[in-house]
Amino acid sequence: MDSEFLDAAQDLARQGLGQVSPNPAVGAVLVKDGEIVGRGFHTWHGRKHAEVLALEEAGARAAGATCYVTLEPCSHQGRTGPCVDALIEARVARVVAAMQDPNPIVAGSGFARLRAAGIDVQLEESRREAAEQLNQPYIHFMRTGRPLVTLKTALTLDGKIAAPDDNRGWITSDEARQHVQMLRHEADAMITGIGTVLADDCLLTDRTQRPRSRPLLRMVVDSQLRIPLHSKMVTSAEITDGEPDLVMAGTSAASPERRKALEARGVRVLEFDGAGGRVDLYRAIQWLGQQQRHNVLVEAGSKINWAFLEAQLIDRVFIYYAPKILGGTESLPMAGGVGRRRRVDAIRIRDLRIHQITSQEFAVEGRVEKDL
Amino acid sequence: MDSEFLDAAQDLARQGLGQVSPNPAVGAVLVKDGEIVGRGFHTWHGRKHAEVLALEEAGARAAGATCYVTLEPCSHQGRTGPCVDALIEARVARVVAAMQDPNPIVAGSGFARLRAAGIDVQLEESRREAAEQLNQPYIHFMRTGRPLVTLKTALTLDGKIAAPDDNRGWITSDEARQHVQMLRHEADAMITGIGTVLADDCLLTDRTQRPRSRPLLRMVVDSQLRIPLHSKMVTSAEITDGEPDLVMAGTSAASPERRKALEARGVRVLEFDGAGGRVDLYRAIQWLGQQQRHNVLVEAGSKINWAFLEAQLIDRVFIYYAPKILGGTESLPMAGGVGRRRRVDAIRIRDLRIHQITSQEFAVEGRVEKDL
Repeated sequence: MDSEFLDAAQDLARQGLGQVSPNPAVGAVLVKDGEIVGRGFHTWHGRKHAEVLALEEAGARAAGATCYVTLEPCSHQGRTGPCVDALIEARVARVVAAMQDPNPIVAGSGFARLRAAGIDVQLEESRREAAEQLNQPYIHFMRTGRPLVTLKTALTLDGKIAAPDDNRGWITSDEARQHVQMLRHEADAMITGIGTVLADDCLLTDRTQRPRSRPLLRMVVDSQLRIPLHSKMVTSAEITDGEPDLVMAGTSAASPERRKALEARGVRVLEFDGAGGRVDLYRAIQWLGQQQRHNVLVEAGSKINWAFLEAQLIDRVFIYYAPKILGGTESLPMAGGVGRRRRVDAIRIRDLRIHQITSQEFAVEGRVEKDL
Repeated sequence: MDSEFLDAAQDLARQGLGQVSPNPAVGAVLVKDGEIVGRGFHTWHGRKHAEVLALEEAGARAAGATCYVTLEPCSHQGRTGPCVDALIEARVARVVAAMQDPNPIVAGSGFARLRAAGIDVQLEESRREAAEQLNQPYIHFMRTGRPLVTLKTALTLDGKIAAPDDNRGWITSDEARQHVQMLRHEADAMITGIGTVLADDCLLTDRTQRPRSRPLLRMVVDSQLRIPLHSKMVTSAEITDGEPDLVMAGTSAASPERRKALEARGVRVLEFDGAGGRVDLYRAIQWLGQQQRHNVLVEAGSKINWAFLEAQLIDRVFIYYAPKILGGTESLPMAGGVGRRRRVDAIRIRDLRIHQITSQEFAVEGRVEKDL
């Protein structure tokens, strides 16, 4: 019984994906006498939390009901009042939650306040993994203080992203590229390098046309601000509520004129001076975290991919494979640069999951193991 | 009903794998009044064909029975008499076969002779694919006159086979390497390059300890016969029934002394002079075909892999992926050399199948599309 209602709450939560950030996706159902009497899922623009929406639907029937929720109810005043107060006031009898809120300002205090009010609280440990899957970037940010950074790339079966002479056409199919759009939809920010902008004149936008809580932030690593003013990236730059959706991660070595020209076009220009005149990627990621961009997607070329991997800034990889072989020592590998020099030093990937995209294409998702 | 008995025949046929070459794997069951009264599968050493073994078990009950068989019964005198004669003599009422024999000396004449004898013959088209899967190399050889050549390789997720400085340890796990042993068990010949022998001092043997119809033939592409006499490859060379299990694919540019020294150790040395002093790989494969080595496995380095791919000599790839990333422009890719220079010219792979090896490892099998 519990498990069926937690599934329903999980399904509701999923509906909020892309519309909740920087909040977590949460779903809740209220059950009285074995029947669902209230449902809710949070969205950023809707403001109200899942539990409150479920309580509103249930009305008087909430008294004595059980609330199934994917995440510990909040105990603090945020954009809305604490959910625990609403649950207590509605005289809910029992709360079953899939996981504790890793946010340090909640972190168990929601459960404690419910218990203090005489409500039976149950943490359903067996549902934790599924619930965590829903909010990986949020949880990662709450635990580490840094965004969850995913390296997305599309490769031939032999690991190549580009041929030496001519790269017209796509590596993967339409279906695979639509799948990527869902990753972008769930992302809060995209990162690429100036090399990719110059080679592909890419947009890096979310083209799903699904509602989002915030515009997708695009960041280009470009130490000298070489990005062309007529590039699709710059000409598509927009400002929403005073926030530009295009950010250049540059250095102080770039010319002030370039900076002014970009700013005049609504582009935000930041300086992250790093070693050897390069952009300090660690600080760039840190800045995204400060903007509450918890879910960051890197879609870049060989060099930038390696720079992020080597700096241990990649938490997760999402690699799409196309049924092709390019071969050759001059074609570009997924990650270039120096690489690891010894086989035993290879970067380890764990929690591997294979996603079948079409009968002929698949993607591999995995977590990057960090060196100590 | 038919389908259940064809499954049983298919399962029997599978038991012969590794023990039938150069013959195809065949399984047969005889069914009388809905009950299996005879079973058989062919092995090279056992000589007798599947149908004959099933008839022997059935004895007098074969009269009026149905014979389910994975391949068209043979109509010619080979090492044994024609199976069609045995089926006719036993007064079998009906024959249900999964596919026609592509061997030009059978190719439908088995069915024709059964029909001429008043036996009801049915070709079960829906079972053809499964039956073909069982004997891919045999069928390929009968249709093209050339062995089925499979490129097997083990890669990091970014397509690398070796690090620049140090390659101690394995890329893949024990389980993946055991899986490779099954590929070797089903192979008739292995090919590698002198570079791999010098780097790894490999054996390239079938270590499954399962029975084989013929010793696994090992071939080293080595134009100058540089292979060390103390290498594991040479010291493990054996001669069975006058046939050496180690063959050097060299050229006439190698020193006659090297040749003599190798021959004195039981190694067969062949000359396949090709362009630019290199070994003519096409002729090497052709020679293997002449030896009735239908199933050939290439396990080599970056350069040889590309040379085989570029010469359009690879029919199938079997790529194992380990959950690792090496990165780097100096690490060796699956296939080196010139490669394809334009993205649109990438070699296409079709009929992709993913094999899950462990929870963290997988292999991709696919057919190579040939350019016209």
